Amino acid sequence: MKQSKFFTKTRKEKIKDEASLNADLLMRAGFVNKEMAGVYSFLPMGLKVLRKIENIIREEMTETMGAHEVLMPALHPLKNYEATGRDKIDVLFYTKLNSGGDLVLGQSHEEIVTPLLKNFVSSYKDLPCGVFQVQTKFRNELRSKSGILRGREFLMKDLYSFHATQECFEEYYEKSKVAYHNIFRKLGIGDITFISFASGGTFSKYSHEFQTISEIGEDEIYFCSDCKVAINKEIIDDSPECPECGKKKADLEVKRSIEVGNIFPLSTRFSDSFNLTYKDENGEEKPVYMGCYGIGVSRVMGTIVEIFADEKGIVWPKEIAPFHVHLISFNKNEETEKIYKELLDVGVDVLYDDRDKSPGEKMAESDLIGIPYRMIVSEKTLENKTVEVKKRNEDDVKFINISEITDYVKKII
Amino acid sequence: MKQSKFFTKTRKEKIKDEASLNADLLMRAGFVNKEMAGVYSFLPMGLKVLRKIENIIREEMTETMGAHEVLMPALHPLKNYEATGRDKIDVLFYTKLNSGGDLVLGQSHEEIVTPLLKNFVSSYKDLPCGVFQVQTKFRNELRSKSGILRGREFLMKDLYSFHATQECFEEYYEKSKVAYHNIFRKLGIGDITFISFASGGTFSKYSHEFQTISEIGEDEIYFCSDCKVAINKEIIDDSPECPECGKKKADLEVKRSIEVGNIFPLSTRFSDSFNLTYKDENGEEKPVYMGCYGIGVSRVMGTIVEIFADEKGIVWPKEIAPFHVHLISFNKNEETEKIYKELLDVGVDVLYDDRDKSPGEKMAESDLIGIPYRMIVSEKTLENKTVEVKKRNEDDVKFINISEITDYVKKII
Repeated sequence: MKQSKFFTKTRKEKIKDEASLNADLLMRAGFVNKEMAGVYSFLPMGLKVLRKIENIIREEMTETMGAHEVLMPALHPLKNYEATGRDKIDVLFYTKLNSGGDLVLGQSHEEIVTPLLKNFVSSYKDLPCGVFQVQTKFRNELRSKSGILRGREFLMKDLYSFHATQECFEEYYEKSKVAYHNIFRKLGIGDITFISFASGGTFSKYSHEFQTISEIGEDEIYFCSDCKVAINKEIIDDSPECPECGKKKADLEVKRSIEVGNIFPLSTRFSDSFNLTYKDENGEEKPVYMGCYGIGVSRVMGTIVEIFADEKGIVWPKEIAPFHVHLISFNKNEETEKIYKELLDVGVDVLYDDRDKSPGEKMAESDLIGIPYRMIVSEKTLENKTVEVKKRNEDDVKFINISEITDYVKKII
Repeated sequence: MKQSKFFTKTRKEKIKDEASLNADLLMRAGFVNKEMAGVYSFLPMGLKVLRKIENIIREEMTETMGAHEVLMPALHPLKNYEATGRDKIDVLFYTKLNSGGDLVLGQSHEEIVTPLLKNFVSSYKDLPCGVFQVQTKFRNELRSKSGILRGREFLMKDLYSFHATQECFEEYYEKSKVAYHNIFRKLGIGDITFISFASGGTFSKYSHEFQTISEIGEDEIYFCSDCKVAINKEIIDDSPECPECGKKKADLEVKRSIEVGNIFPLSTRFSDSFNLTYKDENGEEKPVYMGCYGIGVSRVMGTIVEIFADEKGIVWPKEIAPFHVHLISFNKNEETEKIYKELLDVGVDVLYDDRDKSPGEKMAESDLIGIPYRMIVSEKTLENKTVEVKKRNEDDVKFINISEITDYVKKII
């Protein structure tokens, strides 16, 4: 992509009155636009990052968890929420049909997926099964000041699993932990994202969160550095020790963190509300056991910005960067154009800054945007038949012969 | 995909009280689930079809129209609609923020994209530009009885273009006609989809619709068989002749049709509301000219079901079919398993009916689902070392040697 073709522009100055680092950087670099607090448009580069995160998650849902992708709606009948007793929870947006009928906007999909599965589950032979979606959620948050970390409208992956027995559920639940660890590792935040014990509600002792260590996080966790697990502060007084090794509360490290995912045993909470049952081997009618498994796709994007950014701008992990390489020519010239085409030909996703701007401006913008590799072509490098390559998060530069660029880039991306 | 792994099931009986053919077939074949009138969940095969349609559209938007993909939100501030005078149009869903503030759900995105572009357009050098999205729209229809043809919540591609002059707009508008014709051709409905002149509102003489001929369509058009263009009934009395050849109203064919797309000159209607202007070469402030270009993604899917279905079920054009081949074994056996793996290995998207059901049931379900090629492995075909291949919409069967299957399939898909 040539930068001269972009319709977005970067902004040098901090966004006025923007308290959130991720929102400030993502807006200044042209990844998102804030439409109102908690509601964002994703601009071309922002959408690319979002899709890459989505695909990493999708792959694990499909491959590791054997789940089937669906797309459920945002408009939900209020009566489904009356059936589960969640019709007055404070994050709901309410609306009405012109033809009569009360609706809410989906903040989660238990109230849709449970009745949906009633169409397909009748026998133990139909179980277990897992369905997931990557879909827009709506939560009527009173405050929304953390950029895309806590949106009123945001993209989420939510999976729901259905089982004949508690044992079968537990096996799947364990598998989900593996899938989630794989996802956060692939996203580049595996080493700072830990499973954390949280309240299981009325049916289970625990649910689990995946917490990414960050000073700006809204959560507080008690971290066991031996077991690499944590306990959410909310339940630490009920469970005042590491659930794995028994280390006492006082010996755990208190850390701030961002909840990037959660998995939750639902037992028969929702299947009871909708009478989702199956016939077992003896023809006996039994309730279905369920679990739900969420990851905030846009929240993960905001988290990654918060975690890796430096004073110059965003630093994208290469797995989800909007482009592999930022190619910058200080003077428009045929050589850079040729390098650009060669890289495209071998499948490298290149952003090519072909605009008429000063080297200083171009380099500052490149740092703000945060593509993992910057490649500069200047008169000086051309004299030596080289290009200057620098990683976004390192200071060292390398000079690579023009004839060897495609081989070099194929190796690093 | 093995059919035994599906969580959806087909239904033999017509859905009770379902007036719409597309909804009946899509629900019975397990592509969608109706959550309420006009609101559907897309199940795994339905989502695959939707994504294929989306990708065909996306490719033309990107390649032919040079537009940039974004993702704008569904929550819109009501005040933006007050600015354009559209705050009382009858299809709006209204809701409220808990923190105070009136919102509507996006039924279109002029009220978001126009202020958004104010961030990036200031000079003639920033124009022209086109941005598009594939995004969920909400329309509070009083009646919604046509299945996924007229949803209250539905997937749409909407593109908005921005220009310095009316001439530049017109050039882009003509290009959009080419892109749209390409899309409908690729979708397999090119020969029955025609451009139709419609009302241009207050700013232009005409807008244009793309109308697919169908008895169940809600629109009525006057079709010129010489020019292959039509006039919407709504304006035929103001424009009582073919706009291309002048043939009179009485000589035009009256046909029913489904509006699968529309393109609309917006002139400065919305840029005036939001004061979206640019500085021309002389530094003079001028309003931006706009156009909008829509295609209902889920509506196209419903249209294709309506158009091609026969008494046995759905008939998917191969470009958007959920699978290339429906492989059916009458008895579970190693040979079919081997064929299944071979086809997967060469990149054929196969649905493999490995279930324990009667041949009759399997064939009836296969016809209902509508995959373009059915491939049967029975004891008899195995004796002759062949498989029986039949196109969904033809009666003839062919017997292909097992050793030649992958070559044969690669040629036909």
